Amino acid sequence: MKTVAAVAYQAGKPLEIEEVDLEGPREGEVLVEIKATGVCHTDAYTLSGADPEGAFPTILGHEGAGIVQEVGPGVTSLKPGDHVIPLYTPECRECEYCLNPKTNLCQKIRSTQGQGMMPDGSSRFSKNGQTLLHYMGCSTFANHTVLPEISLAKIRSDAPFEKVCYIGCGVTTGIGAVLFTAKVEAGSNVVVFGLGGIGLNVIQGARLVGANMIVGVDVNPAKQEIARQFGMTHFVNPKEIEGDVVGHIVELTGGGADYSFECIGNVELMRQALECCHKGWGELIIIGVAGAGQEIATRPFQLVTGRVWKGTAFGGARGRTDVPRIVDWYMDNKINIDDLITHVLPHAQVNEAFDLMHRGESIRSVLTYD
Amino acid sequence: MKTVAAVAYQAGKPLEIEEVDLEGPREGEVLVEIKATGVCHTDAYTLSGADPEGAFPTILGHEGAGIVQEVGPGVTSLKPGDHVIPLYTPECRECEYCLNPKTNLCQKIRSTQGQGMMPDGSSRFSKNGQTLLHYMGCSTFANHTVLPEISLAKIRSDAPFEKVCYIGCGVTTGIGAVLFTAKVEAGSNVVVFGLGGIGLNVIQGARLVGANMIVGVDVNPAKQEIARQFGMTHFVNPKEIEGDVVGHIVELTGGGADYSFECIGNVELMRQALECCHKGWGELIIIGVAGAGQEIATRPFQLVTGRVWKGTAFGGARGRTDVPRIVDWYMDNKINIDDLITHVLPHAQVNEAFDLMHRGESIRSVLTYD
Repeated sequence: MKTVAAVAYQAGKPLEIEEVDLEGPREGEVLVEIKATGVCHTDAYTLSGADPEGAFPTILGHEGAGIVQEVGPGVTSLKPGDHVIPLYTPECRECEYCLNPKTNLCQKIRSTQGQGMMPDGSSRFSKNGQTLLHYMGCSTFANHTVLPEISLAKIRSDAPFEKVCYIGCGVTTGIGAVLFTAKVEAGSNVVVFGLGGIGLNVIQGARLVGANMIVGVDVNPAKQEIARQFGMTHFVNPKEIEGDVVGHIVELTGGGADYSFECIGNVELMRQALECCHKGWGELIIIGVAGAGQEIATRPFQLVTGRVWKGTAFGGARGRTDVPRIVDWYMDNKINIDDLITHVLPHAQVNEAFDLMHRGESIRSVLTYD
Repeated sequence: MKTVAAVAYQAGKPLEIEEVDLEGPREGEVLVEIKATGVCHTDAYTLSGADPEGAFPTILGHEGAGIVQEVGPGVTSLKPGDHVIPLYTPECRECEYCLNPKTNLCQKIRSTQGQGMMPDGSSRFSKNGQTLLHYMGCSTFANHTVLPEISLAKIRSDAPFEKVCYIGCGVTTGIGAVLFTAKVEAGSNVVVFGLGGIGLNVIQGARLVGANMIVGVDVNPAKQEIARQFGMTHFVNPKEIEGDVVGHIVELTGGGADYSFECIGNVELMRQALECCHKGWGELIIIGVAGAGQEIATRPFQLVTGRVWKGTAFGGARGRTDVPRIVDWYMDNKINIDDLITHVLPHAQVNEAFDLMHRGESIRSVLTYD
């Protein structure tokens, strides 16, 4: 079949909106009509050429929502008409990782997905006979895409696509880091480095579980207002602190953070975020993605005296299990997504959405196909 | 009163065995006759002058066992004749740390203990009117010493002092790291870097909880025999591996360690020990003490993909609660201490015990006062 997609032919160049060829679903695969997709920093990272694993030409986008159009042989958990959110972290429920309650990093299709291919090693996308790569197993910048059954979370049909698509990455990454990775307890003091989209979702996750202090750290004072709306109780601007930010946060929290979250990808902040944790039990959860080759460092004394250094991917969420629950929380008004989606644009304006991100004008832009 | 002690007057000099003055116990304090004491690397570290917090003149020793002689006013949990093990990590059961189940780092007397003083800010030891400092709140290189009640674990009276004194530090540090900090589950694959006294106790802790593979890593092949006796199932000598030790261990364990332990204090090994952990859930527990100012480093990707970096002090044990239990395990033959104590010397030969350690001839030397 034919569908419309935004194709990334080359690093650093604008995407090209054009008709591409899409093969139907094979064994265990599902054809999905994407109705809406967020534009995420990870898409921009790959498009920039900085991502060492980036490959072209490819169809980017990994934060979508849509409707099942057709299922391949052997698909049992989905049928045409089901509403779904694509998962860049699948959940096969049978690999060594899925069967270990400590991780969400399903490895069933890891190698082919990393190569931009479906599990059988081939792509469903092409243009004039040239293969176009899948991206993060999703490629939601195409109006129609094919995914493995294990890479789709079935969600309720009354949830609005242009809102819940954000649960496909940013919302789940932030809220999940609090709920599933850190397992923050009610009454905890939480410190959040970086008040972008991820940081705001960490904040509302911390509020959801009943945190005590929720301290936001950002050099941009303009972030304060929305962060307070999402649950931030204290704001720290490192540019306005005299002396050491770590010491300031330790004093503010009466001994240090029970949990801190790094939502930027800055290795220096990862160190500060660890060292502002409470002696004896404070945990830093790294969410941000650092530049290729960069390293984090600290004195081991920080760990021997009880601080813990860990990280999270996709918020520790098991997509098929947890994403539908997070959709429910949105529909029940337990979490706020609407105020994070600052721009809704037609798919054809995808490059404008990247510009909004680079100019810092959007928290999240969503593209719609209607 | 007068007692005999090995006094450290100066960094880098031998200890001097002499009679010193000891004041009796004040409010909340207990006079203990030490019957046996281990000689630990931490004593040697402070004596060498490398410990930035070391101060002189002091009476070293922190791994002892003895009998209560006299209790000061207000002491309720101990009476003369009780057998006890001194605790360099006290357990007051009322500070913010003791009341948090995530840590064992009681802070009740932290600052005075760090200064070599009793909680009221004074020392009980002197010589010709010159104050001698307490060490780690214990000073077990004196035949009699005074400690706070919260720094003494009451143990059964049939346990042999010259064996269970080792539970005051090394045994608990190694076994506790497995049981209390890592909480290793039966069936786990465990990797232990460094097969000295701590490493051997980690190994027997791993065996105690039913670990599957217990891999020992050491450049000295002579360590193999006793490590196998304590439960090691596989030995890796980095000098005999072609290529990367991390890759070798990941392959040997079928994906990496569920738990690894660094028992040396080498920051490069701390990195290897993290990176040989299993993707998704492997945890490194740092036990070894690194040199002053040294730092650990890795790529944050290691953490984002699920590895966890943590540390432990005194094996995460709460001394008054856990040390008596570990004494029971020894008396029930669940753990082996006898084969780790390679030398028993009279107290007067304390300098010979340090020499044995420096020459690598002992696993643990114990001094007795009889």
